[in-house]
Amino acid sequence: MLKLIIAYDGTHYFGWQKTKAGPSIQEELEKAIWQITRERALPEAASRTDRGVHAEGQVVQFRLTQEWDPQKIKGGLNAVLPKDIRVKAAARQNFHPTLDAIGKEYRYQICLGEAQDPTRRLYSWHCRYPLDGDPIREAASRLVGTHDFTAFANEREKDPICTLQSIEWNGQFFRIQGNRFLYKMVRNLVGTLVYVGCGKIGIESVGEILASKDRKRAGVTAPAHGLYLHQVFYPLK
Amino acid sequence: MLKLIIAYDGTHYFGWQKTKAGPSIQEELEKAIWQITRERALPEAASRTDRGVHAEGQVVQFRLTQEWDPQKIKGGLNAVLPKDIRVKAAARQNFHPTLDAIGKEYRYQICLGEAQDPTRRLYSWHCRYPLDGDPIREAASRLVGTHDFTAFANEREKDPICTLQSIEWNGQFFRIQGNRFLYKMVRNLVGTLVYVGCGKIGIESVGEILASKDRKRAGVTAPAHGLYLHQVFYPLK
Repeated sequence: MLKLIIAYDGTHYFGWQKTKAGPSIQEELEKAIWQITRERALPEAASRTDRGVHAEGQVVQFRLTQEWDPQKIKGGLNAVLPKDIRVKAAARQNFHPTLDAIGKEYRYQICLGEAQDPTRRLYSWHCRYPLDGDPIREAASRLVGTHDFTAFANEREKDPICTLQSIEWNGQFFRIQGNRFLYKMVRNLVGTLVYVGCGKIGIESVGEILASKDRKRAGVTAPAHGLYLHQVFYPLK
Repeated sequence: MLKLIIAYDGTHYFGWQKTKAGPSIQEELEKAIWQITRERALPEAASRTDRGVHAEGQVVQFRLTQEWDPQKIKGGLNAVLPKDIRVKAAARQNFHPTLDAIGKEYRYQICLGEAQDPTRRLYSWHCRYPLDGDPIREAASRLVGTHDFTAFANEREKDPICTLQSIEWNGQFFRIQGNRFLYKMVRNLVGTLVYVGCGKIGIESVGEILASKDRKRAGVTAPAHGLYLHQVFYPLK
């Protein structure tokens, strides 16, 4: 079984998962694996990132019938993959990419200022108005912990209970660590915190929104292109 | 007379200057000025950046026959310009964008590591091997000052004497300030310093290269997509 750490620029992809709608990371990887090994393998990822979302540390697993040197797989894949998908590391390891994961870190980039930085337009959310850091951090502290995050999910989910270990805002990007995330949850958290930062939502409301379990109460869903899957955590063996 | 500070992502342009070969920043700006003012104006820039080069602080000048509020010009231009060109500031000012400039700062972004960061592939030069900072800084100090930079120019120039105030390397990007620059000079300086950083050119050779006035002695021309025109300096009035 092979494990890859990959990074990608999600701009031109319809997300991780293979779809008839357009190109996907999974399909590019499947094609590249075939090109270098002549084996059919379906790579599985730790996180099924949405259309337009980027990754710095996506974890991928797949099986080959022959024994391959992971370093040769890495070099071979980087030679044939499009430049917007890169293999950062490869190793032989038995694990399940989703079931074994104990947590993930997402980052969400914000571009402040009246005019958007043109070289960051595909990699950050442009917020035209200044964001007040203290209310954002205060609101974030009320979201950290174990809660029912239904109000921040764009789909009904069987188990809406998640634990957020931390939400940090450093004036440039959000850093969000949690054990698991509901559909579009990170983008809904960021949209809500940005609304807090520009005074559209009061700090006090954040607890009420969480308790309401009502998606309509929370802020906007932040756009996909500011979001990065930064890292996936697995237990030490 | 109007002065603009503009930023652009040079990826999709054939450089600042209007050309029949393809889209240019100058032409996009000319079209946008026409759209909002119905006046024909040919904008002139402080630096005619090459194809693929980016700008964070390009300075542009143009004349309109009617009196326009600079803030309305800025807002109007940002409404009609493509998203990869942004007007950061606009003011009424009488000046000549090139003749009055007393200096410029360029920055050159490097992406280190075996696998390139995919979201930076259009905005930095990928150097696969580690760069040793001390030799780079020592070599840079020998290039600072007033010299004949013919060895670092891709075209013969009438006046090859330039003064570099500083070349800084912080491990992520080069910061180069000078009173003027010859054709492709910044990219040739960076190519040479990167060669010094990975041991392909010795520190001692840098002075010899400069003295030789021979372009073939210096390092490779670093690619356009790592280069940013950061700022143009004018005397205080």
